[in-house]
Amino acid sequence: MKEANQKNIPIPASKYPRLIVIGGGFAGVKLIKKLSKQPLQIVLFDRNNYHTFQPLLYQVATAGLEPDSIADPLRKQLEPVRDFFFRMAEVYSINHQEKYITTEIGDMSFDYLVIATGSKTNYFGNESIMTHAFPLKQIPQALDLRSHILQNFEAATITTDPDKMECMMNLAIVGGGPTGVEVAGALGELKKNILPADYPELDFDKMNIILLEGADKLLSAMSGFASKRALKYLKKFDVEVRLKTLVTSYDGITAKLNNGDEIKTCTLIWAAGVQGNYPDGLEDDMVERGRLKVDGFNKIEGTDNIYAIGDIALMKADEDYPNGHPMLAPVAIQQGDHLASNIAKMLKGKEPKKFKYKDKGSMATIGRNKAVVDMGKLRFGGFVAWLIWMFIHLISIIGFRNRLIVFSNWVWNYFTYDKGTRLIIRKFIPGNKIKEE
Amino acid sequence: MKEANQKNIPIPASKYPRLIVIGGGFAGVKLIKKLSKQPLQIVLFDRNNYHTFQPLLYQVATAGLEPDSIADPLRKQLEPVRDFFFRMAEVYSINHQEKYITTEIGDMSFDYLVIATGSKTNYFGNESIMTHAFPLKQIPQALDLRSHILQNFEAATITTDPDKMECMMNLAIVGGGPTGVEVAGALGELKKNILPADYPELDFDKMNIILLEGADKLLSAMSGFASKRALKYLKKFDVEVRLKTLVTSYDGITAKLNNGDEIKTCTLIWAAGVQGNYPDGLEDDMVERGRLKVDGFNKIEGTDNIYAIGDIALMKADEDYPNGHPMLAPVAIQQGDHLASNIAKMLKGKEPKKFKYKDKGSMATIGRNKAVVDMGKLRFGGFVAWLIWMFIHLISIIGFRNRLIVFSNWVWNYFTYDKGTRLIIRKFIPGNKIKEE
Repeated sequence: MKEANQKNIPIPASKYPRLIVIGGGFAGVKLIKKLSKQPLQIVLFDRNNYHTFQPLLYQVATAGLEPDSIADPLRKQLEPVRDFFFRMAEVYSINHQEKYITTEIGDMSFDYLVIATGSKTNYFGNESIMTHAFPLKQIPQALDLRSHILQNFEAATITTDPDKMECMMNLAIVGGGPTGVEVAGALGELKKNILPADYPELDFDKMNIILLEGADKLLSAMSGFASKRALKYLKKFDVEVRLKTLVTSYDGITAKLNNGDEIKTCTLIWAAGVQGNYPDGLEDDMVERGRLKVDGFNKIEGTDNIYAIGDIALMKADEDYPNGHPMLAPVAIQQGDHLASNIAKMLKGKEPKKFKYKDKGSMATIGRNKAVVDMGKLRFGGFVAWLIWMFIHLISIIGFRNRLIVFSNWVWNYFTYDKGTRLIIRKFIPGNKIKEE
Repeated sequence: MKEANQKNIPIPASKYPRLIVIGGGFAGVKLIKKLSKQPLQIVLFDRNNYHTFQPLLYQVATAGLEPDSIADPLRKQLEPVRDFFFRMAEVYSINHQEKYITTEIGDMSFDYLVIATGSKTNYFGNESIMTHAFPLKQIPQALDLRSHILQNFEAATITTDPDKMECMMNLAIVGGGPTGVEVAGALGELKKNILPADYPELDFDKMNIILLEGADKLLSAMSGFASKRALKYLKKFDVEVRLKTLVTSYDGITAKLNNGDEIKTCTLIWAAGVQGNYPDGLEDDMVERGRLKVDGFNKIEGTDNIYAIGDIALMKADEDYPNGHPMLAPVAIQQGDHLASNIAKMLKGKEPKKFKYKDKGSMATIGRNKAVVDMGKLRFGGFVAWLIWMFIHLISIIGFRNRLIVFSNWVWNYFTYDKGTRLIIRKFIPGNKIKEE
């Protein structure tokens, strides 16, 4: 029963107007759940059939959690939503005038469109880094990094070449934001508690974990207290932090730095930045610095019923954030929630309300027992901060099953000093990295 | 400090004779653990850095368990073993006269050699089946099958072609042994409890699960009671069982049968047989029907200090098994255990003892709440059998952490009728299957 305005992707007919959501991240999922009883047909497009709980991706990369713990099938999560359909497909472009999208499986028309496509790794145009560094934004990338790190230690056990040994025993992380700090801390923990027992034939005094940050402090979006504490904790985990340092090129073996220094490492983890990630078809003046310009209601300026939420949205109407909101999960969740309320209001003929971000604080964990938390005017670190970090992440993770599995893993890891998922599940093909598209 | 007889794979020097074990399956791991305090340097070679708990592989393929639950890193498991080293590498060949092995990372000499390389999928020389069917012997294969099944349902939601729909909605399993029966039951459970809610736009009356078996009964290695019960339970899960039926060819879409019938299916799971899997270099008269001929002490006939245990070993000296033991985990575990005792005896100058297999029974599970168990002269089925099956598998799985995670998953799946790991983590490339080598 296809209708003309449905274009060619088969979808059951509906008496309701159609809302298409692109992207099943924090923003998109929150929005759809909140709209579950509204008179709408909702169609979600995502390249993957699962939602990724990105804040814990670094634990997959460092063998602390299995990937299935931080992913939840989108169909399962959104089963209770009325008149809801999921299509696993990449969206190529948006025709904002004729109101349809073009995807790898065909075209589909919409009445409302919400773009929640998030962000992707930003290599700042550096080809050599893009080719050889390991990004950490998607589950396959995290798995790939895990295998790569373990494969390097396996290879180190059989090398007699000191240059190769140095390359394999060094790990560099670029970017001193939460991801970089958390990865560095987790690697420090692996070095201290796990690897020496696994590889008795290797000398772990020769393993160096180097965290590089362009600014003059770590966690620059957080308080001075958090920056200093993070530095102190990382030192305890034997992580070498180099501030005011940029990587200018990397060939898979040698990272060249802006100060002329070089680091020999077979593993360069790139956590230095993200950029917006959106389909083609929008006008140039709708885009600024890679993000989509939205008004105070998350509507893309110059369009009708087309919205953007989460990392991809650049909203300057919130007075406290004149350059736009930070690209963080809490912003995405609040925008998804708020836009859902506004759409429900508009469906009833009511006026929508402006979005206002409520910053509930930010946090980062650094290995075992250590974290930093900024919460309003409170700043604290250490064990209490770590417990808060654990609690917040555990209650935030989607799906009770995942919560149970993550909790079991953490309890196990904590009391045994073990990390159970040290599996290599790819063939060792140097340079064979999973790239973002 | 390399010595001439060490060949070129670097390994710390030892005052003890060197035992090389090829393969970290049930047999190899059991042997090494039992030899942990003996005056030996033990070197284990495996292509993977983990041990696979194969009896639960089918649950990974059917989204019941994450792969990390049924795998355990070999280095971690064998950490307590004295003078033990692991090398992740494929072994190419054995020079049984000069006593060294050749691997992808170089050569290594041995004083004792234990071949515990297990078995691989047997396609009985059928090229078309080898190319297009899904084997189920390794973790990457199970993950690949899981993604393939889910991708087919995703693709079915957008097709309007009835032939394609039929191909995508049908699943065929070849082989009515424990693996085939267990996969079929698990798929039946998915059809009944999970998929209709996940894919409301599909008509699951059109989904057919077809189990094909060449013999005139299922589970032919078990009792007549078990065979009949398995058939009854599979019918409850809406699995169509065709006995005395062989697949003669399969092109990825159509399976041709020996009775002239055809089955349209995009998914043919091949669980019809296994064959020995061993390195080159042994004499032809050491091999029979793809397995290595061993005497009653698991020694390969015509060699000095070279042993084979587990699936790969063909021992006719055990009077109850004149054609060799069944290729099952309990045989492998008992042979690993027994050979370790014999090696310990020989190191002390004592006489080794002959191996005798103690059959403690066999079992298979069929979906939720149902299993069949043969134990001595006892035969039972149903819920009690299912509880026994769960208990035995839970206590057998290596590593307490894995046990905890598997148990959490099962409890969750049981009470919620959910299976949480329905993730597609590969790109959809038709025919892009992970093959055994």
